[in-house]
Amino acid sequence: MQHYFMTDCEPGHRNLDLPTDISHHLLTVLRAKRGDQFELVLADHQTYLAELVSNGQARIIKRLARQSELPVHVVLACGVPKTKDKPELIVQKGTEMGASQIIFFDAQRSISYWKGNKRERKLQRLQKIAQGAAEQSHRNYVPTVAYAKNWQEAVALAQADECLVAWEESAKEGEEAKLAQNLKNLRPGQRLLAIFGPEGGLTSGEVDAMQKDGITAVGLGPRILRTETAPLYLMAAVSYQLELTK
Amino acid sequence: MQHYFMTDCEPGHRNLDLPTDISHHLLTVLRAKRGDQFELVLADHQTYLAELVSNGQARIIKRLARQSELPVHVVLACGVPKTKDKPELIVQKGTEMGASQIIFFDAQRSISYWKGNKRERKLQRLQKIAQGAAEQSHRNYVPTVAYAKNWQEAVALAQADECLVAWEESAKEGEEAKLAQNLKNLRPGQRLLAIFGPEGGLTSGEVDAMQKDGITAVGLGPRILRTETAPLYLMAAVSYQLELTK
Repeated sequence: MQHYFMTDCEPGHRNLDLPTDISHHLLTVLRAKRGDQFELVLADHQTYLAELVSNGQARIIKRLARQSELPVHVVLACGVPKTKDKPELIVQKGTEMGASQIIFFDAQRSISYWKGNKRERKLQRLQKIAQGAAEQSHRNYVPTVAYAKNWQEAVALAQADECLVAWEESAKEGEEAKLAQNLKNLRPGQRLLAIFGPEGGLTSGEVDAMQKDGITAVGLGPRILRTETAPLYLMAAVSYQLELTK
Repeated sequence: MQHYFMTDCEPGHRNLDLPTDISHHLLTVLRAKRGDQFELVLADHQTYLAELVSNGQARIIKRLARQSELPVHVVLACGVPKTKDKPELIVQKGTEMGASQIIFFDAQRSISYWKGNKRERKLQRLQKIAQGAAEQSHRNYVPTVAYAKNWQEAVALAQADECLVAWEESAKEGEEAKLAQNLKNLRPGQRLLAIFGPEGGLTSGEVDAMQKDGITAVGLGPRILRTETAPLYLMAAVSYQLELTK
């Protein structure tokens, strides 16, 4: 069933005027008819079952009990990758898997620096991808996409209770249990920040500085994961540990 | 460090003639010089440290202890997706995350039927992507990519000890622990088959028939994952459970 966000609309009204983009999508793209049902997320971030009553108007039928958010807030901070498609993949899949916020930061080995207008346009496009993925995966929240000029600024933006950095050298050192230990200790509502390098990885200088700042280096298994694959591994691990392991 | 497969070459020789594609990549693409080091996986599927001795020849320095294979064999069976990029993403990321075999099968809702020559060309291209991803992630094995005309043929091909099907209705029914139970019961060396629907999902008829055939339906959390995201979630969950959770 189609799922839309109308988070500027407070719940409590029985009939709603749909904004132009939603009514266009329903009527023109999906050719919906009077009585067709869809889901709306309102300002309380709950999902409501709605039906089309006339062109551009919807009637709320009931609130749905379904909750599709992770029990913790996960912030992904990724070194700006070289190519255009990698940030798009991280945002799309990270959103599907439940991320709360996705920050791209300029790491020492980031090659493509996002500058000025170009950066704003990129962020707008990525935010739109997050919105589409949040609709597709029936989320209650759309994650925010942001830019930070370095990892320190990403850490400040994230305001996390627990900070991790994915570091492949951890795997080489035989460190295998730190990620699981950290995830098991998370309490509902806490914020987890996970930092990832760009292509070519973080420098050992960056990782040393992060560790001095109290950030825990964790391995993601013995295989070398591409820059866009590591955040998806982390998101799946968080969901598996906190949603599927009793 | 660069990582190549020479699995038709038995170990035990000190000097090796490199095949044309590897020597071309080393000399022309990477501009490697005499004494430059790289990794070779030989017929025993162990990784060896090698160095370039002259154009087209390598010397084996030593066997490396590193093991990058999952303790179990994971076979992904995915309903043929509509678009070209989704199978490529599944093969690339599935390989990085440790899959042993990736089978695409025609599901009832598969729209793009892979036919005749087209199918062969697609499989060749996907096999090449698997090879590239196995080199990049420093695997000891290159997964095989195959086609099956339906899920029954995929099951027959996989020869698995344990078969799962990802089924989003399981999540709606509040089933949350079956995947974890299944993964915890796997023993090293066993083969796990995980089946995924194409866009639009498997039909309930297909899932009923699978369950009658002894295949366990499992949920992958409360969010609806795209057809290409679900296999990556599964791969990360297997790695997290079997490699990172003690």
